[in-house]
Amino acid sequence: MTIKFTRQVQALPASVPFVGPETLERQSGQHFAARIGANESAFGVSPKAIDAMSSALGISGCSWYGDPENHDLRTELARKHNVDSDCICVDAGIDSLLGLCVRMLMEAGDSVVTSDGAYPTFNYHVAGFGGVFNKVPYTDNKEDPDALIKAAIENRAALVYLSNPDNPMGTWHDADVIAQMIERVPTNCTLLLDEAYVEFAPDNTAPPIDTGNKQVIRFRTFSKAYGMAGMRIGYAIAHPDMITGFNKIRNHFAVSRLAQIAALASVQDTAFLTSVIEKVQIGRQRIYNFADENKLSYLPSATNFVAVDMQTEQKAKAILAALNEQRVFIRMPGVSPLNRYIRVGIGTAAEHQVFIDTFNKLC
Amino acid sequence: MTIKFTRQVQALPASVPFVGPETLERQSGQHFAARIGANESAFGVSPKAIDAMSSALGISGCSWYGDPENHDLRTELARKHNVDSDCICVDAGIDSLLGLCVRMLMEAGDSVVTSDGAYPTFNYHVAGFGGVFNKVPYTDNKEDPDALIKAAIENRAALVYLSNPDNPMGTWHDADVIAQMIERVPTNCTLLLDEAYVEFAPDNTAPPIDTGNKQVIRFRTFSKAYGMAGMRIGYAIAHPDMITGFNKIRNHFAVSRLAQIAALASVQDTAFLTSVIEKVQIGRQRIYNFADENKLSYLPSATNFVAVDMQTEQKAKAILAALNEQRVFIRMPGVSPLNRYIRVGIGTAAEHQVFIDTFNKLC
Repeated sequence: MTIKFTRQVQALPASVPFVGPETLERQSGQHFAARIGANESAFGVSPKAIDAMSSALGISGCSWYGDPENHDLRTELARKHNVDSDCICVDAGIDSLLGLCVRMLMEAGDSVVTSDGAYPTFNYHVAGFGGVFNKVPYTDNKEDPDALIKAAIENRAALVYLSNPDNPMGTWHDADVIAQMIERVPTNCTLLLDEAYVEFAPDNTAPPIDTGNKQVIRFRTFSKAYGMAGMRIGYAIAHPDMITGFNKIRNHFAVSRLAQIAALASVQDTAFLTSVIEKVQIGRQRIYNFADENKLSYLPSATNFVAVDMQTEQKAKAILAALNEQRVFIRMPGVSPLNRYIRVGIGTAAEHQVFIDTFNKLC
Repeated sequence: MTIKFTRQVQALPASVPFVGPETLERQSGQHFAARIGANESAFGVSPKAIDAMSSALGISGCSWYGDPENHDLRTELARKHNVDSDCICVDAGIDSLLGLCVRMLMEAGDSVVTSDGAYPTFNYHVAGFGGVFNKVPYTDNKEDPDALIKAAIENRAALVYLSNPDNPMGTWHDADVIAQMIERVPTNCTLLLDEAYVEFAPDNTAPPIDTGNKQVIRFRTFSKAYGMAGMRIGYAIAHPDMITGFNKIRNHFAVSRLAQIAALASVQDTAFLTSVIEKVQIGRQRIYNFADENKLSYLPSATNFVAVDMQTEQKAKAILAALNEQRVFIRMPGVSPLNRYIRVGIGTAAEHQVFIDTFNKLC
């Protein structure tokens, strides 16, 4: 007897968006000395969040379900972004929110426009619900808003995805470019504007938030600048009608209580955020300097990683494999022509020293 | 302009499976003195889990993504259940796993069989993916395996759901009854056997686990006996082909790292589990005694709550509302004829004293 999966699931390949560093560690039998491959923060969590979690480790923070309305956090985020709290959906990370968006806005067979080489987990969800990809190439290592909009129009796309700043290249567009893109989103299409890395970007990267626009969903996360990737909490900002859609299908108790507690403490700790941003700027400069010293090109970054040009796919893959084997965890873009780069995360000075020493030993 | 939701989402009502206690607290403007309504544990988390989490509060436990393979925990659970680790899917709670099951095994329009009054969150997912309900009544306040199987056969159901022990009534069937039910699951139908409360039940409640059977998925959780409802971690045990299906669609990074750490420590702390089970047994007896003293019937329970018979729906609803207003959070079954009962959670002795004093004051 075979299991009667849905036609959609039956047709899916067994795939994963990312292989975790723990999997690589189990394969090699050794622990990474520098974990700078998953765009995680090397600068930890707000001390205020640690204090709040420490106080709650027990019944009130672990045994009780989280507030399904995420009320207190939404209230604080609404204040931060100067929007109504009905315009915010908190969920267990942007990954989960992207899955909800696909399920909510895309019928099987609908077109979805994204950049060739952009965030694989979004693609995982689109494939999982039977979407049809229309991928446009990066232009000068940047996602191309103009090409994305043209493809969305031509293909009558249900969704168009853009990450600004971009992952995996670290490049970005100024707010006015994105604002122009937003104006051109075609009817019956929604722009998913992933701003996971926006705290690391120049001030004029994010256009003003307009919750009156029903065609845009903005995504923010506590995974990156706030250092809470392992805690699974992020949020969408959108028109209240869109939030009502999320509320029809989300797992209402999906956000862990400790994540709610830590996020609330973190968002109030602006000094911590500032210090992380500074550390990331310093870390980017370390990688820029490393590249210069090795006569390698790099892409100026608005994120917590830097794409360093190894000139060919072959060289990039070889150095990546060698680094991983030498206990330095990094990743690289998966698609040509982006895959002549390796993506070096902003670790601590110590982690970067391990990376640089290992790189220099290998090259 | 209106948002172009999928037809399925457009047709859904804005509904939530449960209103959280925090929502009630915000409405009343007062905090609950006894939180015994959501089947959460009043006995907290394993001290070993607390220690493990405390040591990890920071980069390694919060800033790093969890292992997407949940490798170490699956290995330990495989040992515990004497199954292969390929037969286990760890995810962010049974709620999430039930959603994945529905998406994976049920086409829109397929029949789903459950008991009228059983777990609302399962129904939420079935409705969310367009399933058609065939509900059978409880018999003597128990879910009725015979009626469920008959309905599954008659309606060519894709899924049949049974919780053993049952929520919201606390009743249970012996293992041999469930084993007979498993034998009768019709072709092309999967039995979702929710065993969230099984640790509280008599020893002969769970039939042997047979991962060679492709038609059964067993669900276990760290939310109840292990006291980790707020941490979102549970697992499915099934045939490896079924686990492959989960792996095609689950959010691979969905489980928080602290939950992985705490679950691993908890599953190894059998002394803690034993102590919680004893405390729950003592707490059930307290509620049995309370009921006897008030000349109320109750249902012997194999869970961490007791259904107490208020004789009529009207009386049950009235006392529930009065208790909630007097800062005692409890819930009750939502459907007739189960809703002549109120469901009293096993709190601490202090919480139960608040409940009993308040009840006696009101009645």
